[in-house]
Amino acid sequence: MDIIDIIIKQKNGIDLSDSEIEYLINGYTQGIIPDYQMSAYLMALCFTGANEKVISKMTMCMANSGDILNLSGISGTVVDKHSTGGVGDKTTLVVGPCVAACGGKVAKMSGRGLGYTGGTIDKLESIKNFNTQIPVERFIDIINEIGISIVGQLKNLAPADKKIYSLRDVTGTVDCIPLIASSIMSKKIASGANAIVLDVKYGSGAFMKTYKNAKELAETMIKIGNQNGKKVKALLTDMNEPIGNTVGNSLEVIEAIQTLKGNGPKDFLELCIDISSVMLQLEFVDKSVDECRKMALGSIENGTALNKFRELVFMQDGDVECIDDTNKFPKSKYSLEVKANMSGQITKMDSEKIGKTACLLGAGRQSLNDKINHSAGIFINKKTDSYISKSDVLAVLYTDKKEILDFTKEYYLDSLTIE
Amino acid sequence: MDIIDIIIKQKNGIDLSDSEIEYLINGYTQGIIPDYQMSAYLMALCFTGANEKVISKMTMCMANSGDILNLSGISGTVVDKHSTGGVGDKTTLVVGPCVAACGGKVAKMSGRGLGYTGGTIDKLESIKNFNTQIPVERFIDIINEIGISIVGQLKNLAPADKKIYSLRDVTGTVDCIPLIASSIMSKKIASGANAIVLDVKYGSGAFMKTYKNAKELAETMIKIGNQNGKKVKALLTDMNEPIGNTVGNSLEVIEAIQTLKGNGPKDFLELCIDISSVMLQLEFVDKSVDECRKMALGSIENGTALNKFRELVFMQDGDVECIDDTNKFPKSKYSLEVKANMSGQITKMDSEKIGKTACLLGAGRQSLNDKINHSAGIFINKKTDSYISKSDVLAVLYTDKKEILDFTKEYYLDSLTIE
Repeated sequence: MDIIDIIIKQKNGIDLSDSEIEYLINGYTQGIIPDYQMSAYLMALCFTGANEKVISKMTMCMANSGDILNLSGISGTVVDKHSTGGVGDKTTLVVGPCVAACGGKVAKMSGRGLGYTGGTIDKLESIKNFNTQIPVERFIDIINEIGISIVGQLKNLAPADKKIYSLRDVTGTVDCIPLIASSIMSKKIASGANAIVLDVKYGSGAFMKTYKNAKELAETMIKIGNQNGKKVKALLTDMNEPIGNTVGNSLEVIEAIQTLKGNGPKDFLELCIDISSVMLQLEFVDKSVDECRKMALGSIENGTALNKFRELVFMQDGDVECIDDTNKFPKSKYSLEVKANMSGQITKMDSEKIGKTACLLGAGRQSLNDKINHSAGIFINKKTDSYISKSDVLAVLYTDKKEILDFTKEYYLDSLTIE
Repeated sequence: MDIIDIIIKQKNGIDLSDSEIEYLINGYTQGIIPDYQMSAYLMALCFTGANEKVISKMTMCMANSGDILNLSGISGTVVDKHSTGGVGDKTTLVVGPCVAACGGKVAKMSGRGLGYTGGTIDKLESIKNFNTQIPVERFIDIINEIGISIVGQLKNLAPADKKIYSLRDVTGTVDCIPLIASSIMSKKIASGANAIVLDVKYGSGAFMKTYKNAKELAETMIKIGNQNGKKVKALLTDMNEPIGNTVGNSLEVIEAIQTLKGNGPKDFLELCIDISSVMLQLEFVDKSVDECRKMALGSIENGTALNKFRELVFMQDGDVECIDDTNKFPKSKYSLEVKANMSGQITKMDSEKIGKTACLLGAGRQSLNDKINHSAGIFINKKTDSYISKSDVLAVLYTDKKEILDFTKEYYLDSLTIE
């Protein structure tokens, strides 16, 4: 098989055969096909696209390039959840316990944050001693025992995706729906769940800036999942302002705990119930949407979800005391109130800019080896549509880097449109 | 400057700035930009194209990446000629002497053949002792003295083009008019002539299969030349059957000599007069097309063109005796007549296939380091529109490789459509 022919075929918009796709993905992963040919192929794909059969086959090859997690030791439907990345997105911390409290089985492999979007693993590690790197056997045991476990990704999860993603990152081929879809789904398929709920975000703080693109991405991922024998449902959710009132690891964990205690922000609770109910529908196919919503909401009202979260923290060696008293989370050295410099109404928030503010404060990382500060971040007092008076506190910034405070204050103010 | 931004800009079809083009071409030539980013850029360009200003700037950067030949020591307008590559294309051997005999200055740097297209340097080297690797000073002296010299390309001619072309060759980005145009023109500009005539071929034996694509390529090259201060004219010529009756190095030189003696095939003579007259128009701007045609034809009729060819061979150390007696060219060990296996009319000839037949016989090379057999090739007796009877000799094959004769005979017959 000739890789040049394969590139030209893709350039001419002709669908590759199964064996060509296998040759391409396996050849690249094994180093037989060099970077410069793969990048030409990827760029051609960005322009010509590919049908669902091709993308599904490609995804399967990427999943099969590494270990496929075998979750057959867990009885019932194992459900996974994936968010395409947002600002202040701590939903997994509430949704997971909700679904497990209702009898679902949640097997969740999460990533770390990169750039302006956070990662669930970083958030959980702001809980003292919480272990996200437990062995697979223990992961399965915990799910069988309490219905939920959340861990970091396997080292050898879809190495083809890792290699292709690194190349896309430096060749201007990140922004391509078939490639985004296959990247996400290859990891989800390798993670072993039978059912997957996708939270596809759109708006200023999301990778997909428009509803239309988010919808296309969701539909592509659903097709890939179905072609590969997975039950997949997707939600399209708004990321035009941060989720809830916090951005930053321990700040978000505290907000998730408050929400499980029934004291969370309305928008965040609503999103958690939406996602939980979709997960529960995959789990309990004979139940209606309404029934699933009631189950999810009930688990918060009756405290079983909070209790499930406590069990999760306990099983993964974390300090459960901080759940009862969130004051036990370490605090940042410095804080600064961001005050309004005019009166009016907040008509828009630039979530990406707010995410970057949190990143500058120390909550995020620019490259995967950077250290993060778990207590750094932003507490947001005023969100979109709020009427504000001059000198009102709009947000509070937390950091250990005093020198960055003035700059980040201005940067945060820049993220708001006040009219 | 960020190469990823440059790739994304091209992907989005936005014109690069001059400094971005410089960074791209110089960065790649110097090894600062890796192959995998350049190949992504090139593929994006294949899809989005670029305006003439961008392509001209790119071409100039490629030309400037190496030595620029300084021909200011030659008085008058120095004219160069380039063919986009054909089968049996020995026009330079006739056109150059014609123009020089009429008082023009012809400075020609030529390439070697690759694949199914021949190269003028290989053809000239079938003349015993002909030296195509003379120093630049001597090249200029010869042109000043006799009006013409033909040499191989400078070692350091447009190294950026050499590097980019090698990458295009293995990444499916050869077939892209802006890139083809900038590749050709970067070498022509670096070759130093003030005026350039482009013979852009279309048809089965040409790189451009259609007239429309050839026209687009010609127009792009003219714009690049003009933007860079060169006088450029282009001819679009048919390559649906081989030029003249011969394909193969010494066979073609013999045919060129016969033509200079006034005994050449009509189609080939016509093409030579067309090209010569366009070259003469660039040289003598106050003369009409008709006057230039008459001058060119006159130089053949009165023997001055033949004499100029003899001077050229003499000045570059070649054996002039073979001009007077073409039987002195070495012969192939084996020959085979290809006879018609049916009666009818030849309605089509696949020039590419005929070029490949010659290549198989030993006249061409697959990679630049292969040795060629100067006496191998094809003498074509019957061309398109000929009426033939069964057993008529359609062509004669010449080779030193006996084992290939039967196969090439069948292959040659396959190239003809007889109805």
